[in-house]
Amino acid sequence: MKNSIGREIPEEIIKDKGLFQGAFAHNERIIKAATKVKAVKPGEEKLLQSLEEAINKCNLKDGMTISFHHHFREGDYILNKVVDIIAAMGIKNLTLASSSLSGVHSPLIEHIKNGVITKITTSGLRGELAEEISKGLMKEPVIIRSHGGRARAIEAGDIKIDVAFLGAPSCDEYGNASGTGGKANCGSLGYAKIDAEYADKVIIITDCLVDFPNMPASISQEKVDYVVKVEEIGNPSGIVSGATRYTKNPKELLIAEYASKVITKSPYFKEGFSLQTGTGGSTLAVSRFIREEMIKSNVKASFALGGITKPMIEMHEEGLIKNIFDVQDFDLTAVESISKNSMHHEIDASFYANPHNKGCIANKLDVVVLSALEIDKDFNVNVMTGSDGVLRGASGGHCDTAACAKLTVIVSPLVRGRIPCVVDSVNTVITPGESIDVLVTEIGIAINPRRKDLMEIYKNGDIPVYTIEELYEKSISIVGTPDKIEYEDEVIAVVEYRDGSIIDVVRKVK
Amino acid sequence: MKNSIGREIPEEIIKDKGLFQGAFAHNERIIKAATKVKAVKPGEEKLLQSLEEAINKCNLKDGMTISFHHHFREGDYILNKVVDIIAAMGIKNLTLASSSLSGVHSPLIEHIKNGVITKITTSGLRGELAEEISKGLMKEPVIIRSHGGRARAIEAGDIKIDVAFLGAPSCDEYGNASGTGGKANCGSLGYAKIDAEYADKVIIITDCLVDFPNMPASISQEKVDYVVKVEEIGNPSGIVSGATRYTKNPKELLIAEYASKVITKSPYFKEGFSLQTGTGGSTLAVSRFIREEMIKSNVKASFALGGITKPMIEMHEEGLIKNIFDVQDFDLTAVESISKNSMHHEIDASFYANPHNKGCIANKLDVVVLSALEIDKDFNVNVMTGSDGVLRGASGGHCDTAACAKLTVIVSPLVRGRIPCVVDSVNTVITPGESIDVLVTEIGIAINPRRKDLMEIYKNGDIPVYTIEELYEKSISIVGTPDKIEYEDEVIAVVEYRDGSIIDVVRKVK
Repeated sequence: MKNSIGREIPEEIIKDKGLFQGAFAHNERIIKAATKVKAVKPGEEKLLQSLEEAINKCNLKDGMTISFHHHFREGDYILNKVVDIIAAMGIKNLTLASSSLSGVHSPLIEHIKNGVITKITTSGLRGELAEEISKGLMKEPVIIRSHGGRARAIEAGDIKIDVAFLGAPSCDEYGNASGTGGKANCGSLGYAKIDAEYADKVIIITDCLVDFPNMPASISQEKVDYVVKVEEIGNPSGIVSGATRYTKNPKELLIAEYASKVITKSPYFKEGFSLQTGTGGSTLAVSRFIREEMIKSNVKASFALGGITKPMIEMHEEGLIKNIFDVQDFDLTAVESISKNSMHHEIDASFYANPHNKGCIANKLDVVVLSALEIDKDFNVNVMTGSDGVLRGASGGHCDTAACAKLTVIVSPLVRGRIPCVVDSVNTVITPGESIDVLVTEIGIAINPRRKDLMEIYKNGDIPVYTIEELYEKSISIVGTPDKIEYEDEVIAVVEYRDGSIIDVVRKVK
Repeated sequence: MKNSIGREIPEEIIKDKGLFQGAFAHNERIIKAATKVKAVKPGEEKLLQSLEEAINKCNLKDGMTISFHHHFREGDYILNKVVDIIAAMGIKNLTLASSSLSGVHSPLIEHIKNGVITKITTSGLRGELAEEISKGLMKEPVIIRSHGGRARAIEAGDIKIDVAFLGAPSCDEYGNASGTGGKANCGSLGYAKIDAEYADKVIIITDCLVDFPNMPASISQEKVDYVVKVEEIGNPSGIVSGATRYTKNPKELLIAEYASKVITKSPYFKEGFSLQTGTGGSTLAVSRFIREEMIKSNVKASFALGGITKPMIEMHEEGLIKNIFDVQDFDLTAVESISKNSMHHEIDASFYANPHNKGCIANKLDVVVLSALEIDKDFNVNVMTGSDGVLRGASGGHCDTAACAKLTVIVSPLVRGRIPCVVDSVNTVITPGESIDVLVTEIGIAINPRRKDLMEIYKNGDIPVYTIEELYEKSISIVGTPDKIEYEDEVIAVVEYRDGSIIDVVRKVK
C-alpha cells in the first residue's frame, strides 16, 4: 500500500500505526501513558553500589524495554557498559529505546547477534552498527523516530520504558541530576527528561556525586529510583567540541549567504521573530549572516530553539536573542551558557517538538534552517540514508521543525563529490515536501509551488530563483543520473512520521 | 469501625479508601492517572474572549470536576467569578477540587444550595462557608486533604480534574504562566502546577497578558489549552502581606526560644541541615532564634522548605540557607525573591510532599516546626476544627512534613483564652501522634515517649521537660475541663491522611 506521498509500505508493517496522510492529518485526542511508581519513604537510600545491583532492584527481565539518551554523543560510555552488564546477567530479548545511536555504539552488534537486544527504536544510526543493520542484522526492523515523535510515542505509551539508564554529569545521592557540574558535561538533558518522566524505573548513572541537593536539577529526585556512581560516564572530547568551526568553504558560504537573504527578505524577519539553525557548515554560517542583518536592521529575536551552538549563545549574550530554548548542546560555549544565563532555558523533547501535546515550542518557530542529504522534485527530504542506501544519519528534529515553522529553509549543495543532492526521488523520506518552503543551493533557490506568496517576494531580488526541476536537471547535468540502488524486499527500518504514522521504510541493501 | 489511632469511622465512609493504619503503613505501587490531551497545531489560537467561551470549548458538563489553586488566598477573585459564570450557564452537580478555600469564598454557599457544587475536596475551610458546611450545608461530606495528599490523589486519579481554572499574575497568549510579572503577584504557583499537569483541560486566567514567551514559566504552554484575560484576578493586599510581623507577645517569644533550643541542641542541627517553619507568631520567631544560633555556631542549612516568608529569604540572602524550595509565598519579600534569587526554587506540591512519588523533598527534612489548635495525650494534632467543633483551619502540609521530618516540633500555648490547647483527645486528628516528636509550650516541653533518644538529650538542659500528661493537667488546671462538643451522627467532612486512608471524620455540630 502507498501512503499519501506515494511511498510503498508493506501491509505487515502498517498494523495499527496507519499510513502517513499529511503533516497534520492526525487530529487525535491522545491519552497519556500511565506510569507505575514505587513510593520512596523517608530514610530509604537510592545510592547503590553497582549497576548490577540497580538492574536487579529494577527487576529487569527478558522482553522489557530499556532506554538511554544521546547527550554524550560519540563520547558515550554508558550504553555499552550497561548492555554489557545486562548481557552478562543473562537477560535477553530487550527493546532498546535510545533517543539516538552513534558510531561509538558498534559493540551493540554482538549483543544483537546474541539475542540480548532484539528491537531498536532510535532517531539516528551511524557507523558500523548502522551498516550491519542495513545489511539485515536484525529480525525486527528498527523504528526511526524524530525527537518530537519519540516524545509523543513515550507519552502515548507506544514506547513503554521499563528501565531508563540515564547518564548525568552530576547527581546527588537522591537523584537530582544535572547536565553540568561534573567532569563530562553535556549541558541540556532535554531528551532524557522525557524518559525520567515516563519510565517505570529510572536509574541515574554519574561519575560525579555531589552534595544534596544538586540544584538546579535537569531531572528531579521524585522521578528517580536509584543512583549509581561509576568511574567515567563519557569522554568529554566526544561529548562536546571545544569550539565551533566557522566554514571557509566558498560553496557553503555562498549557500549560507543566499539562505540568510531568503530569511531576512521574508515577512517573518521582524522584531520578535524566532529561529532554529542547525550545526552543519552552511547552517552555522547562516547565523553569522543573519546576525549582521539583525544589527543593521535593529531587529531582535524573541527566541532561538534547538540544538544550541556558540553563534546562538553569542547573539543571546549581545542581546540579539532574548530566550534560548535548549534541548541539547553541541559545543562548550553552549554548555557553559546553560548554567550561567538565566534566559537560556533547558527544555524537554515534548516541549520542543511533540506534535500531540497542547502546543510545543516548535509551533511558534518562524524560521528553521535545515540540511539535507537529498531533496527531491516533490521537496521530500532525506537525512537518513546515503547514496548507497545505507543508514547513516538521524531523523532528529528535522520533520518536527519543518512541519511547524512558518518558513522552512533547506540548505544543500547541488552535488557532493560525484553524488547529486537534488534528485528525482529521495531514497528515504524523513520530511515530506509539503513542510519545505525553500531549497537553497550554491547557484540559487527553488521555492515550493505551494508558497506562491514567497515566489512573489523573491522573484525580483538578487537571489537566482529556479524551479526544483531546474535544480534537479543542473544537479544531474554535473554528475549524471546515478544508478538505482539495489534493495531486497526485506524492511530493515521503518520511518515513523512525528504523529506515529508511517512515512517510509528502508530496505536491506543488496 | 476504628482506625489504628482509635477514631470511629462509619463504614459507608471507608469504601475503598481504607482505614488509617500508621503513617507509612501503605506501601503501594501506584499507577499514575492517564491524562487526555487534545493536540494544538501550529497557528491555533489559545487566547479566548471570555470565560464563557473557554468553558464552552472545554466542554464542561454536569457532574464534572473543576479545580482552582489558593495562591491568591483571601485576595482571590477567580473562584467566585468562574463559579458564578458556570452557574449562569446552567451547569450543575460539579465537584470542586480546590487546593484550599478561604473566607473570601462564602459566595459558594449559594452555589451549593443551588446544586451547582455538590462535592468539595480542599485542604482548608474557613469563614462562613466553613460554618455552613459544619452545620450540614452539603449532602456529601467534604474531603479534607493535605497538600501532599492532594498531589497524591491527583497523580493516582482519585481526583480526576476535568477542567482546571488557574489564575496567573502574568501569562502570554500561548499559556506560559507565571506567579510574578503582573499586578497581583503571588510568587510560587506550586499547587497549581499539579493541576496543570493532570487536568484534561487547563484554562489560564490572567489580568496581565505579556509578550510571548513569558519566561521562566511556572506553568508551561504545552500543558495549557486556553488563555483568558480578565480585569482583575485578585486583590494584591489579600494575596500577600506587605511585611511580616515579628511577634512581641512574650508567651509566643518564650515558646519560640524553647523551640529553637530544642532544635539547636538536637543532633540534627549541624552543617547542611534542613528546615521548615510556619507562619504563626511563634514559628516566625523560631527562625530568628535559630538564625542567631547558626551564626554563632557557624552552621549553614542546605535548604529551607515550605510556605516561604521573609525570615527565610533573609537567611538565604545572607548565605545561611543555600536553597529555598518554595511551594507558596506568604509575603512580598518571598514573592520578590523568587524572580531574583537563582537558588530560590519554585516547586510543585508533588515534589513538596507527595508520599507516593519516588521521594518528595519533605523526605529530606531534618526539622519542621508546626503549630496546633489542639494536641492530645497521644500527641495527635488538630489544625482543622475549633473548640466548638466547627471547621476553621487547613490541613496544609502539616501531616506531610510531620511524617517526613527527623524532628517534628509542635509549638503551642498551653491555653488560648479560656480554651485548653493540650487536651485529652483532639476534636479532629490531622496529624497522628506517631509523627510528633516534641511539643513546646510556654512552660516547657513534652517529648513523645517513642523518642527515648531525645529524652536523653534534653533531660539535663535548661528547658523544663514534662510528660504530655503533665502538660495536659496544667492546661486543664488553668481553664478547667471543657464541656464535650455535641455532635450529630452526620459526617460533614472526611479527613484523608496523606496516603489516602481515612484518619478521621468531622461530624455536624448540634
